[in-house]
Amino acid sequence: MLKFNKENYLKVTLGAVGLRGEIEAKVDEISKKKFKNIFLLGSGGSIAIMYPFEYMLNSISTIPTYAEIASEFMLQNHKQFGEDSLVILSSLSGTTAETVAAAEFCKQRGATTLGLVGEMGTALANIVDYPIANYAENDFAADSINLQMYIVIFRLIHNNGEFQDYERFISQLEAIPNQLVQVKQDSDKKAEEFANKYKDETYHMLVGSGTAWGRTYAYSMCVLEEMQWIPTKAIHAAEFFHGTIEIVDENMSMILLKSEDETRPLMDRVENFANDFTKKLTIFDTKDYVLEGISTEFRKYLAPLVLATALQRVSIHLENKRGHSLDKRRYYRTLAY
Amino acid sequence: MLKFNKENYLKVTLGAVGLRGEIEAKVDEISKKKFKNIFLLGSGGSIAIMYPFEYMLNSISTIPTYAEIASEFMLQNHKQFGEDSLVILSSLSGTTAETVAAAEFCKQRGATTLGLVGEMGTALANIVDYPIANYAENDFAADSINLQMYIVIFRLIHNNGEFQDYERFISQLEAIPNQLVQVKQDSDKKAEEFANKYKDETYHMLVGSGTAWGRTYAYSMCVLEEMQWIPTKAIHAAEFFHGTIEIVDENMSMILLKSEDETRPLMDRVENFANDFTKKLTIFDTKDYVLEGISTEFRKYLAPLVLATALQRVSIHLENKRGHSLDKRRYYRTLAY
Repeated sequence: MLKFNKENYLKVTLGAVGLRGEIEAKVDEISKKKFKNIFLLGSGGSIAIMYPFEYMLNSISTIPTYAEIASEFMLQNHKQFGEDSLVILSSLSGTTAETVAAAEFCKQRGATTLGLVGEMGTALANIVDYPIANYAENDFAADSINLQMYIVIFRLIHNNGEFQDYERFISQLEAIPNQLVQVKQDSDKKAEEFANKYKDETYHMLVGSGTAWGRTYAYSMCVLEEMQWIPTKAIHAAEFFHGTIEIVDENMSMILLKSEDETRPLMDRVENFANDFTKKLTIFDTKDYVLEGISTEFRKYLAPLVLATALQRVSIHLENKRGHSLDKRRYYRTLAY
Repeated sequence: MLKFNKENYLKVTLGAVGLRGEIEAKVDEISKKKFKNIFLLGSGGSIAIMYPFEYMLNSISTIPTYAEIASEFMLQNHKQFGEDSLVILSSLSGTTAETVAAAEFCKQRGATTLGLVGEMGTALANIVDYPIANYAENDFAADSINLQMYIVIFRLIHNNGEFQDYERFISQLEAIPNQLVQVKQDSDKKAEEFANKYKDETYHMLVGSGTAWGRTYAYSMCVLEEMQWIPTKAIHAAEFFHGTIEIVDENMSMILLKSEDETRPLMDRVENFANDFTKKLTIFDTKDYVLEGISTEFRKYLAPLVLATALQRVSIHLENKRGHSLDKRRYYRTLAY
């Protein structure tokens, strides 16, 4: 596969699930201390990773959860937040300014903080009570953080007596890295065809729901816009029919990201519409991947991970076909603003 | 002013604040019965109206609040929701399918339901425990619902012992309809100039934060996309720098919606950037309006109302300059899907 180093990828993903013991020990300590609610904080890609876990927490657990954009959160004076809150943040570099500031803000107010980073000794790792480190290259960041987040969040829910299947789910997850390589292989041809067909497209509409919404939002903003400079609209499937529908015509590129969770009927409805009204429909569906060893009932949780993994192939091929490096920025670290 | 019937507008807005006594009696009854948390449900424009109130509740009150998209909410099995939840919904027609279904769903599960409608006897009014009706034409719907929502939400917070200024704030709000007419007059010239300058623009980026975010989301989706068929991106000011920034060049139309709340520094940062990097910057700022009789400390709450009022003038002029009726739909109630 183009620009894919399997060895590195397995090192990152096996590294992430390899932290299971360490994560469980830290999470168990947090659960023992008790906390009132969970704040998932981040910006851009790092808050987008949190949205599916907020959805899963709300669907499975009675622990009140709030996913908030870091810099707004610090200004808002959120009344649910306090010293009995558990705050979870992530930053691969460990230096993202708003994430570091948010961790500092929460620490000063006495909350318990857990941070996922790429390396110990970085600013975020130094601030949080519970740093967890797994080295990853930038293009595998989502996979690394997602894998760790499953262990963190489902352990918290399990400790709260609300997820009896924890042992089985996480054991299956430990064996997923090779399955994720398979996802990449199984999506690569489709990704290349997409890149070929749509390399000159000037606008994409992305639609997702439930556990796939976070990746829908992130792929629009952090890849197509940030890394390829292509304007997009990310719209939730439950919202699509309430306005955005009207800008669809047969030339609208629509990209549907489908999960196997409870909200799938919302996506089916959009898909039926898109089949009738645009000639440019692309669907990435977790259902298309085998995921050997994963029980059916756990597949609905895996959309963030599987879609990120598959879409990474789209990014690689877009970069190639469009001759636009994924690292190229007009502003970020290029111009002062 | 073009297509503005002052008499009708005052009838709608005075009608809304005129419900104060009735709303207070119903809310007081709800507060007396006790409830555990608030669910604000809706779709499209009606959930967008809820977002600022979710923000205000989180900033002022310890009552846990969840704003959720109606049709996703019904599938998700939200574990915070139950018979001790208070559910607030709105539908001007009283017939919006997903809103009616959500009310039915919540009622069956024993939750307390309050619904804002345009007319008694409609489906939503018949289902909810506490229907509140104020007749409004479609183009004044946001103003009508917003005004009632202030009374509902701040009364709930006040009853929870968390907003001592209730009497003063709502009394000032009762006198606001004439001030809103003034907002329309004060924004009309700017709205017409905007429509003239940007009538052929094929894409707009809208940026907002805090109490202005809901209107940012709604104006993008429910007006520019739905009523004018112009693709948009609505991006939160705290997220703008994390990806979307890269699609800005000097020809990008950026529309900034500024509130006077705590998150204003986030918008100032985007404004500074936009001043340097695009030639097509438009700002609608609540600070530009006098709002006689409104105390300074209450102005930050009024962004949803003031911006909706001002932007309605933009819609009217866009319709006129673009020769595209605000009522024209490609799909909704036109084609089966």
